[in-house]
Amino acid sequence: ASDSNLIRATLFPGDGIGPEIAESVKQVFREAEVPIEWEEHYVGQEIDPRTQSFLTWESLESVRQNGVGLKGPMATPIGKGHRSLNLTLRKELNLYANVRPCYSLPGYKTRYDDVNLITIRENTEGEYSGLEHQVVRGVVESLKIITRQASLRVAEYAFHYAKTHGRERVSAIHKANIMQKTDGLFLKCCREVAEKYPEIKYEEVVIDNCCMMLVKNPALFDVLVMPNLYGDIISDLCAGLIGGLGLTPSCNIGEGGIALAEAVHGSAPDIAGKNLANPTALLLSSVTMLRHLKLHDKANRIQDAILNTIAEGKYRTADLGGSSSTTDFTRAICDHL
Amino acid sequence: ASDSNLIRATLFPGDGIGPEIAESVKQVFREAEVPIEWEEHYVGQEIDPRTQSFLTWESLESVRQNGVGLKGPMATPIGKGHRSLNLTLRKELNLYANVRPCYSLPGYKTRYDDVNLITIRENTEGEYSGLEHQVVRGVVESLKIITRQASLRVAEYAFHYAKTHGRERVSAIHKANIMQKTDGLFLKCCREVAEKYPEIKYEEVVIDNCCMMLVKNPALFDVLVMPNLYGDIISDLCAGLIGGLGLTPSCNIGEGGIALAEAVHGSAPDIAGKNLANPTALLLSSVTMLRHLKLHDKANRIQDAILNTIAEGKYRTADLGGSSSTTDFTRAICDHL
Ligand SMILES: CC(C)[C@H](C(=O)O)[C@@H](O)C(=O)O
Ligand SMILES: CC(C)[C@H](C(=O)O)[C@@H](O)C(=O)O
Repeated sequence: ASDSNLIRATLFPGDGIGPEIAESVKQVFREAEVPIEWEEHYVGQEIDPRTQSFLTWESLESVRQNGVGLKGPMATPIGKGHRSLNLTLRKELNLYANVRPCYSLPGYKTRYDDVNLITIRENTEGEYSGLEHQVVRGVVESLKIITRQASLRVAEYAFHYAKTHGRERVSAIHKANIMQKTDGLFLKCCREVAEKYPEIKYEEVVIDNCCMMLVKNPALFDVLVMPNLYGDIISDLCAGLIGGLGLTPSCNIGEGGIALAEAVHGSAPDIAGKNLANPTALLLSSVTMLRHLKLHDKANRIQDAILNTIAEGKYRTADLGGSSSTTDFTRAICDHL
Repeated sequence: ASDSNLIRATLFPGDGIGPEIAESVKQVFREAEVPIEWEEHYVGQEIDPRTQSFLTWESLESVRQNGVGLKGPMATPIGKGHRSLNLTLRKELNLYANVRPCYSLPGYKTRYDDVNLITIRENTEGEYSGLEHQVVRGVVESLKIITRQASLRVAEYAFHYAKTHGRERVSAIHKANIMQKTDGLFLKCCREVAEKYPEIKYEEVVIDNCCMMLVKNPALFDVLVMPNLYGDIISDLCAGLIGGLGLTPSCNIGEGGIALAEAVHGSAPDIAGKNLANPTALLLSSVTMLRHLKLHDKANRIQDAILNTIAEGKYRTADLGGSSSTTDFTRAICDHL
């Protein structure tokens, strides 16, 4: 019984604490009367030959059909002969850009109070090619692949994002002084795109220097765009500045406008099922999904309720130094709506 | 006229502010009566065909003969057909480990006051292989090379360092969940060496997680060992935690016990010759050279004088918020000896 006024979105609750934090999102969406109907999919128990992973073909088809989805943490099952679930999603859905807004949360104190940046990571190639082999005994090599197509695509996304989100500057992060050809091509593509956006400032920063600047003065940065591995490293570094992966949203953008928002923290099996998990990262990720759907009013309302609840400090989960349960924290957010 | 009681050490003053900060080291060493005779070498004006770089063969021979050296910043001259000076030194002298102690300086406030760690970077291979090519138009690749020999060598150095410097734990930093063969081999080598040092704790940390932990709580780490590029990134991140590259010593260790200490900051051409440069990184690097020579009394005396001068706060160069000249700061250190 599907209501034709509702937008269908795929939901992967995921493993461990996944179902509890997904429940929290569902409750907040109900309370805020978000016009979304969830289509839930679970990680399978067997390898689906069509995806070579525990993710079923049907679940991927669901994201392709709906165009939007939300994903909880997925524990990659141990054993050989299958692909990592995260990498399968990126590859099969061609999720070429990983976008992570990272900003200091009012009232939640860390060593930094002035973080407000966006990392945009190329998500399909680079050091993640999977191409590795032994040359001779004791000598192994792995290939980093950079293509013009993927570099232009993510650069275009970054500049478009900057322009449409009122951002002033894009910094391309690289190590082209050492990897002149690969990172050099990446920079060349960024420069090409930069010329089409004269209103956005453009700069290039070497990755080691970028990390030093980030820990000294993160306010120096606005939008950062970079190849895969640098994005993996820098997005986690930035998350650390504001308190960790439990607080940072993430959204993957694919060809044809697909958006798969996800919490990038782990599945925390030790606290799973105990009503202790912090749903903030998944909630803030769901907000990025709403923005992608241009449901800005709902997005703003929910984001404000989350940030105000944390700022108020009365209800906080244990990882933020409080003693609230997942459900009490979620209830408090609903009360702030 | 060389005094046979003196230890000969090579000195590369380097470019930009290099000569001024090298002068500072010479003065402090004279004042502390360090039994060292400097053999100065400069970056050449032409490419030496034997080194394919602006570094002369004679200058490299000098380090090989003396076994120890100190290097200021070197600006890589623009133009094609020659190798970067830093990379030439690492390659020609087989400087396989880059060691950077990083600790909060008493009295010099940053957001962190509890940093006390050592990064040990593999310095010869990995992403720095220089092997890159275009596969087809718009598709380039670069090779990351990991060898058993170089990985065992740097792991051995890290554990030996931990043991001889009263350190408790070695963390191997990697991304073996993605680069299973290359970083996997690196980890395998670390594990093999770890077994020979049962008194030193051993752990493995994924690089993205490591960066997040470092910015949240750097006190979690002790000695870190890692492949080339991760070392480049993490050592700069750590330098940022305590105030920047102007404050962190660095020492390169080569086969046959060679040690080339170096300031890893830039040559700062804008302030060169103006008596404004901060000599701290080169001075602290010279201290690591003294320790390598087992001149621990001199090393301790000089290190204490540097740290006390900074802690006292009366004489500080502009980069540390003061207004002292290089020579006044140096004079103050001499007075603290
Ligand atoms: C789990 C791992 C494969 C993944 C990555 O390296 O991309 C994770 O660190 C991330 O950032 O999503
Ligand atoms: C200048 C550059 C080639 C060098 C490197 O990448 O190793 C520098 O960043 C360093 O850490 O010494």
